[in-house]
Amino acid sequence: MAGNTTSNLIGFLCDTPMVGSGYFGMLQIGLMAGCHKWETALVVKSFDLTDTALAGRVRALLERTPLRGIILPEPICEIVPVIEAAIETGLPVVRIAPHTDLGTTLDICLDNRAAAYDMTHYLIGLGHQRIAFVKGPPDHRDAIARLEGFRAAMADAGLAVDESQFLTGGFDYAQGLGAAERLLAMRPLPTAIFASNDEVAAAILSTAHRLGLDIPGDFSLAGFDDSPLARSVWPQITTCRQKMELTGYMAVDFVIDPPTSAEARKRPMQHELVIRQSTARAGRPVG
Amino acid sequence: MAGNTTSNLIGFLCDTPMVGSGYFGMLQIGLMAGCHKWETALVVKSFDLTDTALAGRVRALLERTPLRGIILPEPICEIVPVIEAAIETGLPVVRIAPHTDLGTTLDICLDNRAAAYDMTHYLIGLGHQRIAFVKGPPDHRDAIARLEGFRAAMADAGLAVDESQFLTGGFDYAQGLGAAERLLAMRPLPTAIFASNDEVAAAILSTAHRLGLDIPGDFSLAGFDDSPLARSVWPQITTCRQKMELTGYMAVDFVIDPPTSAEARKRPMQHELVIRQSTARAGRPVG
Repeated sequence: MAGNTTSNLIGFLCDTPMVGSGYFGMLQIGLMAGCHKWETALVVKSFDLTDTALAGRVRALLERTPLRGIILPEPICEIVPVIEAAIETGLPVVRIAPHTDLGTTLDICLDNRAAAYDMTHYLIGLGHQRIAFVKGPPDHRDAIARLEGFRAAMADAGLAVDESQFLTGGFDYAQGLGAAERLLAMRPLPTAIFASNDEVAAAILSTAHRLGLDIPGDFSLAGFDDSPLARSVWPQITTCRQKMELTGYMAVDFVIDPPTSAEARKRPMQHELVIRQSTARAGRPVG
Repeated sequence: MAGNTTSNLIGFLCDTPMVGSGYFGMLQIGLMAGCHKWETALVVKSFDLTDTALAGRVRALLERTPLRGIILPEPICEIVPVIEAAIETGLPVVRIAPHTDLGTTLDICLDNRAAAYDMTHYLIGLGHQRIAFVKGPPDHRDAIARLEGFRAAMADAGLAVDESQFLTGGFDYAQGLGAAERLLAMRPLPTAIFASNDEVAAAILSTAHRLGLDIPGDFSLAGFDDSPLARSVWPQITTCRQKMELTGYMAVDFVIDPPTSAEARKRPMQHELVIRQSTARAGRPVG
């Protein structure tokens, strides 16, 4: 079935927890638009990444299904036996947001560091100097890169970073609530808080509401991802948007029209700041 | 390709705006679980329902793709040329939340009226009597059925309904904001507000925050759907959950193991109330 250029089906293999997430939803909008353009359809299959039979299950699906190419989002795109099974088909294999460079796949790479740098630079430009950063999961490379971008922008502006106000908020709302409790109990409050993703930013926002703190009056708040949640709370959250819809669209293009040169095997994802009401110019002293 | 019981692929055809929505996400979790159980994969394809070539596009996909069965969610499951194209394949066709009974398809039907009745009954049980209802889109049958359920529960409790406090909030957050502005400017305030879905309830919540109104202190608030949004705001929103994940799972079962008798062609979706912090016992007079 290798190199099946007549198939109208593109495989999208992901991990089970991804299904139903806002991230998946945004990506799928772009995937559907790409499929529409090329008159193809998407074969979606989720897997339990801890399943010891994972590689066999992936292989069974790939052997049985006539595909035109295979798209692997993060984190399944880092599982070596899955990648091997995909490569063996001889089909184009596109990885979305991988952290490794294998030289054999088509990679769409995000630059978390640059995006977090840009957001921090924006906050500094508003006059903020005491900026707290809420870290993501300690072993998550995206989270680490976002922290690096934050540190670099603070250093480039000659601003000190108060490590005591660096809390680990994970990447989900429930964990974010714990970090928010601790952070908002600190005095002086930071004048701005940059959370590693929107779920955690929303947890800080709801905790601030509960404590009677005003955003952006008492502090500015920024998130990351532009998930639907960032637009559905009040005030709406300033965030950084990885263009996931565009990424999905690019992934289909990559499958249908793969590059022949090794240099063209990597394409960048784009990002942009989305400025909303949760951030404002630094003003009155608080705390 | 009719009756292709050897295929490992189940078709899921939907309208383009559905892709990326919370509703789609929840449904897809169940679809994936069903696919896992039966070792099948889902072929997802979205369509522009206003496209004059819609039926031809659907037919082209169905002719070209070896499917085991076809799942059509609302609203594409009401488009007659699409249903005809699906039926002609001879494959099992499952419709999710249809409003019509064709006698030819397998239908999973929700009872919006009963669910809205239950929520209203719950609010009345908390002691609320002046309950405002925010209507969904006027031509949307689910929205109409929810309104009917509300009216019936109020009538059964012998409570008057104040039509002047019935506002149309649509089904999305932006439209909800407009309804919230008008509703929260009314005096006396209702002691409880039941919004036709969670997006609109979240818009009322954020508007209340902005106006300095307390939920549930100044009024109780209930939504509908149990979208992720309902859990990600403060206070979390009491809502009614159509078991979408279970529905997705049931839909795959229906395709793989279709009933033979005409009576078994319809299966009910289940619902449950999800009681959270946005509702409380009616207490002090407000307004």
